[in-house]
Amino acid sequence: QGILERLDAGEIVIGDGGFVFALEKRGYVKAGPWTPEATVEHPEAVRQLHREFLRAGSNVLQTFTFYASEDKLENRGNYVAEKISCQKVNEAACDIAREVANEGDALVAGGVSQTPSYLSCKDKTEVKAAFRKQLEVFMKKNVDFLIAEYFEHVEEAVWAVEVLKESGKPVAATMCIGPEGDMHGVSPGQCAVQLVKAGASIVGVNCHFDPETSLETVKLMKEGLQAAKLKAHLMSQPLAFHTPDCGKQGFIDLPEFPFGLEPRIVTRWDIQKYARKAYDLGIRFIGGCCGFEPYHIRAIAEELAPERGFLPEASEKHGSWGTNLSMHTKPWVRARARKEYWENLKPASGRPYCPSMSKPDGWGVTRGARELMQQKEATSEQQLKELFQKQK
Amino acid sequence: QGILERLDAGEIVIGDGGFVFALEKRGYVKAGPWTPEATVEHPEAVRQLHREFLRAGSNVLQTFTFYASEDKLENRGNYVAEKISCQKVNEAACDIAREVANEGDALVAGGVSQTPSYLSCKDKTEVKAAFRKQLEVFMKKNVDFLIAEYFEHVEEAVWAVEVLKESGKPVAATMCIGPEGDMHGVSPGQCAVQLVKAGASIVGVNCHFDPETSLETVKLMKEGLQAAKLKAHLMSQPLAFHTPDCGKQGFIDLPEFPFGLEPRIVTRWDIQKYARKAYDLGIRFIGGCCGFEPYHIRAIAEELAPERGFLPEASEKHGSWGTNLSMHTKPWVRARARKEYWENLKPASGRPYCPSMSKPDGWGVTRGARELMQQKEATSEQQLKELFQKQK
Amino acid sequence: QGILERLDAGEIVIGDGGFVFALEKRGYVKAGPWTPEATVEHPEAVRQLHREFLRAGSNVLQTFTFYASEDKLENRGNYVAEKISCQKVNEAACDIAREVANEGDALVAGGVSQTPSYLSCKDKTEVKAAFRKQLEVFMKKNVDFLIAEYFEHVEEAVWAVEVLKESGKPVAATMCIGPEGDMHGVSPGQCAVQLVKAGASIVGVNCHFDPETSLETVKLMKEGLQAAKLKAHLMSQPLAFHTPDCGKQGFIDLPEFPFGLEPRIVTRWDIQKYARKAYDLGIRFIGGCCGFEPYHIRAIAEELAPERGFLPEASEKHGSWGTNLSMHTKPWVRARARKEYWENLKPASGRPYCPSMSKPDGWGVTRGARELMQQKEATSEQQLKELFQKQK
Amino acid sequence: QGILERLDAGEIVIGDGGFVFALEKRGYVKAGPWTPEATVEHPEAVRQLHREFLRAGSNVLQTFTFYASEDKLENRGNYVAEKISCQKVNEAACDIAREVANEGDALVAGGVSQTPSYLSCKDKTEVKAAFRKQLEVFMKKNVDFLIAEYFEHVEEAVWAVEVLKESGKPVAATMCIGPEGDMHGVSPGQCAVQLVKAGASIVGVNCHFDPETSLETVKLMKEGLQAAKLKAHLMSQPLAFHTPDCGKQGFIDLPEFPFGLEPRIVTRWDIQKYARKAYDLGIRFIGGCCGFEPYHIRAIAEELAPERGFLPEASEKHGSWGTNLSMHTKPWVRARARKEYWENLKPASGRPYCPSMSKPDGWGVTRGARELMQQKEATSEQQLKELFQKQK
Repeated sequence: QGILERLDAGEIVIGDGGFVFALEKRGYVKAGPWTPEATVEHPEAVRQLHREFLRAGSNVLQTFTFYASEDKLENRGNYVAEKISCQKVNEAACDIAREVANEGDALVAGGVSQTPSYLSCKDKTEVKAAFRKQLEVFMKKNVDFLIAEYFEHVEEAVWAVEVLKESGKPVAATMCIGPEGDMHGVSPGQCAVQLVKAGASIVGVNCHFDPETSLETVKLMKEGLQAAKLKAHLMSQPLAFHTPDCGKQGFIDLPEFPFGLEPRIVTRWDIQKYARKAYDLGIRFIGGCCGFEPYHIRAIAEELAPERGFLPEASEKHGSWGTNLSMHTKPWVRARARKEYWENLKPASGRPYCPSMSKPDGWGVTRGARELMQQKEATSEQQLKELFQKQK
Repeated sequence: QGILERLDAGEIVIGDGGFVFALEKRGYVKAGPWTPEATVEHPEAVRQLHREFLRAGSNVLQTFTFYASEDKLENRGNYVAEKISCQKVNEAACDIAREVANEGDALVAGGVSQTPSYLSCKDKTEVKAAFRKQLEVFMKKNVDFLIAEYFEHVEEAVWAVEVLKESGKPVAATMCIGPEGDMHGVSPGQCAVQLVKAGASIVGVNCHFDPETSLETVKLMKEGLQAAKLKAHLMSQPLAFHTPDCGKQGFIDLPEFPFGLEPRIVTRWDIQKYARKAYDLGIRFIGGCCGFEPYHIRAIAEELAPERGFLPEASEKHGSWGTNLSMHTKPWVRARARKEYWENLKPASGRPYCPSMSKPDGWGVTRGARELMQQKEATSEQQLKELFQKQK
Repeated sequence: QGILERLDAGEIVIGDGGFVFALEKRGYVKAGPWTPEATVEHPEAVRQLHREFLRAGSNVLQTFTFYASEDKLENRGNYVAEKISCQKVNEAACDIAREVANEGDALVAGGVSQTPSYLSCKDKTEVKAAFRKQLEVFMKKNVDFLIAEYFEHVEEAVWAVEVLKESGKPVAATMCIGPEGDMHGVSPGQCAVQLVKAGASIVGVNCHFDPETSLETVKLMKEGLQAAKLKAHLMSQPLAFHTPDCGKQGFIDLPEFPFGLEPRIVTRWDIQKYARKAYDLGIRFIGGCCGFEPYHIRAIAEELAPERGFLPEASEKHGSWGTNLSMHTKPWVRARARKEYWENLKPASGRPYCPSMSKPDGWGVTRGARELMQQKEATSEQQLKELFQKQK
Repeated sequence: QGILERLDAGEIVIGDGGFVFALEKRGYVKAGPWTPEATVEHPEAVRQLHREFLRAGSNVLQTFTFYASEDKLENRGNYVAEKISCQKVNEAACDIAREVANEGDALVAGGVSQTPSYLSCKDKTEVKAAFRKQLEVFMKKNVDFLIAEYFEHVEEAVWAVEVLKESGKPVAATMCIGPEGDMHGVSPGQCAVQLVKAGASIVGVNCHFDPETSLETVKLMKEGLQAAKLKAHLMSQPLAFHTPDCGKQGFIDLPEFPFGLEPRIVTRWDIQKYARKAYDLGIRFIGGCCGFEPYHIRAIAEELAPERGFLPEASEKHGSWGTNLSMHTKPWVRARARKEYWENLKPASGRPYCPSMSKPDGWGVTRGARELMQQKEATSEQQLKELFQKQK
């Protein structure tokens, strides 16, 4: 059954987690470029991560083609020891995803993401050509559906959807935006409307913000669609980092990005709360992005097991809510083998010399905006920008 | 070259990271039992983790035989769907480790750890028999050397060393203790002395405490050996969690153990500081335990690259000190491409409703002891114990 | 010169600090009732606090008549050992304030605040009668001007202004609201408009929120007045507590209110930032409320000394920006004798087991609203209210 | 009855709080010099503070003669607008304390503290002469007993005791040290022994450390006296600031000293815990030092009211454990009118951008020593010192 059949039937579809962050920690992706040449260089590492997500409950395996447009790979080429063609990277990604998907009953989704071309020239033809080049591989490899993800500008996302729709396959589209909307100030509701009008059957957000913030954004998208009397399935694939302090451009502006985010990593219990809220909000395609490890995906599957009627394979190695602590030799550890304990735990950081929040760098900020504005004694974004440039 | 030849020649030997925690997150090990039947059930997952550590710079691959004594596997049997024999688990572990070690120039170390037999009966013959059973596999599979690790009682560790020494192979021994010493109150210095007298050529600590605390303990071991005019190589394989607030029995007593430790995960920069301090203290076998992921091991290798003259393979995907952020499109992210930035960052937790420290559960406490004692208005361990039992 | 002459001439007028909190800590006011019978019982204590504010730079001494309406004094009568008449309390307050004001060149302002009558019956005649009773004393004692302060409902504040205007004296009016507006949902801008139309010459906020939030609220008032083409002087007398986490009803809903607020107390440097921002925003009547001690008022006067051309008397005991640390015996303490040091200090709480933020109790929340709403799985204030009542 | 009669009879004697900090905030003492010329310049302010402490339950009023030795007053003379003679300051202090003491049944204690002469020349004759000069005033004004307090070196404290003993009046002696002992490394136990041998009838600690740490120090003093088979009454007058992170020289080395300590201020509930622990430890002279406000002293008196059989006068304005919140209009505030609530509250700082602990400046450190040493990569105090000087 295809993605739309599943969703139309009311099924919960579980996405996968974040490849670039997980593989960076495993030694196969370089932070900075974040490109996926590992599909060619180290297919076994990519395959193993797909397998772990499948085992954790993912119903969709995304091809590891993030930032795999030709312009991006070239742009970041100076980081890569040996040039590997865009086509090879994308083909290998499709092959690996399909191989693992066949080990279970998962769907393969071919994915495109924002391009440097858009940022540098914004030429519609050129940008669409980049997407089309990747799409050709996806068609050749016959992926099950397509995802346009990680777009900061709805204009580019719309172009991507338009290209992907040429294939005739179902298209999902997620933006990496928060409640403030896209970088040109288009609100989440308006973004959703434009994406659906362009042909997306599934819309939502991915990356850049924590689960809580992301759900706020999807809620605004939902309301926008309702107001426009449009229908679409909802999707969310947020960060697995707590980012209450980040601004309009998300976690990239946080001082901890990308090498000091550890204290922000969410627990499996945080994810269970997220999965429940997402479900309650009507979202049925629920997954994750950067920071999501297999055990986070499993937490979605475990939280929604009552609704779905089954547990993922990896739950054979996990007692829900810590139940397998019940045989520990220490009585106080046994006392942790219950839902109430983990639900209410306020985990300490072990870092008494560190604060709990940071001020984001940059000038495009939402939640922390007021503070930053006041702090920098500037009253407009323009002034802030000038101020920032002066400081450099 | 064997482990002792390397260490005697003054080489830095880099250990590997924590298997049970990493594989728990990947979906192959159950928290609670923490047993390594994955070597039989999912060899590809174990193999991939070994490979990542090798690639990150590990010179020693430990067989994934933690808690793989027969009594432990039986004891925890009720957790495991299907019984898998102790011998099979240990053999598979050796085979996988050797296969990956041969992909580079790493050594394979067979490992034994504390047994339920010791805790329940303390019968020397029985306990030694358990170690001997594992040793037989290690000899058959011809591992390069042996490690007795994760012992809370020096008495049991000494028994383990005595058994392992029967093999004629070099023996390393690490205890999971802090500066307060073992659970019977034997000081780190005395523990080291007893282990060396029993035949260990390498002594140190692993698990239970954060890098900083672990180095304090090794320092006390070093001083104990010097006072006793004994010589041995030093080794440390600490947690990759910040645990300034934990007590004598380490992180198990922290309320966050084992499912809420995320905010405590150390950064790669914390590990670079650890590697430098360990080196300065004279430790030459430097690795990690629970929480250590491949990128943490790589951080050891990168910090000590000047001394060693080379970088690990995985550094092809890592610019030291964030250098590959220098091409980021945002100027404030580019500003993070330097050592001073990451060295001095105090990373925020993103959790303003959580504290920075926890009071450990249990009664065997060191650093937090005073507080707990005062808080519970008890003046002795016995009183605390009774108090605790009353509370239950 | 009267208050309006001063403000019209562009002078900065410095208010005083919080009497009920300061005198509670000194042992003369009871938390809970918060009534000012100390004016009769312990005039020397009230006098001394007035003197300290005068010395710190206050240009206005408010009569200590907070919650001194007859209905309030009776309502809270069960707390007070011996009944003291409303008239006596108000008269004594006027006498003490005038006595101290005459030691300098300060003005005396008679103050009224919200009444239990309004909350219980909302009868305009009765509520106005309560204000009128206090006004009679103020007229008899000939205060210099009048302040209606600490109103949560603009309707009641308007009634107070109407009564006070009968006197012919200048009237200031401040509400204890945040950016979300009054308890009936009237926006700050609308509140300001109504107050000015009722006759207030000075409008603003006092109490309930921290300096930063209060300034946001005054900014909204200013914008409301501008939009309505009305003119009035602006005034702010916020808390001296950090309350970024509080909801619509302010600090009363914080779990720490009123006996655990210590870690939130602002420093003198926080106040200097507040004074500067208030000034930049066009506010010219700048003072404080609960938590403001004399040294906080002095900080306002010191920050604005360049604009005013003089320092307050109490600055003879204070080197600006820590300059008198320059002769300390320890070099690292001498290093603190500079503005940059104190401006940038992020002071630690010394409380590693405490969080940095709290969730407010109650259901009327602003900033934390979303979270609370989500947490309580309620979508409307009404539902939250019902939920809360069920929980009790 | 005299101090010794009271203590010998087993009475609890409650001391007073901190004058220099309280009067600094009120505008009468200059931070840096910290000298008490306010006794002459503003006797009404000093009198009022004495009265508040008396009312809060103090049984002893210390003359405000801290740092009032002639050498100190001269040394700090450049801070003071007009020179006021040492004799005048000390006489006025005695007169004010006696006047207020007579309003109740409190005792007046004349106090001396460490001198610049000791630090600069250490000449016994000269130092003793300074103490003797103050003692002459105390004898002329006939104080009830004498306190030598705030000594960092036991040698100087012994000299002070020897001088004070010449008077024939009872002598108490407290040092501003922590568990690590005095600045020359004399342990608390040894300090206590030397002070008792020199003639002190009461020994203990004051200032520099938080209540918890101070009680640890007094406990060590008690054990030292027991080991030496000496008898003396015990006394503690700690800070009202949380300082778990401070080093050997106490809170002066904390980056927040003296103008950013607000987030560290202890609550009344912290003080109740302190009073109980102090009592349980056998301390019978229980008071406070810097940061202690009248309501903190009242908290001691309220906690020990069951033992003493009465409440202080100021409790007429304080319901124990928040009982007077029981009539609040909001149900969730009423829910705070109980002991369990306030006992268990972990108060938030409202400062999400600030850490919970600081690294102390300077090199003489205890608790944080290890860290600082490691951080600065120095292995000895001498190296640290050099390092520090280089950094300047």
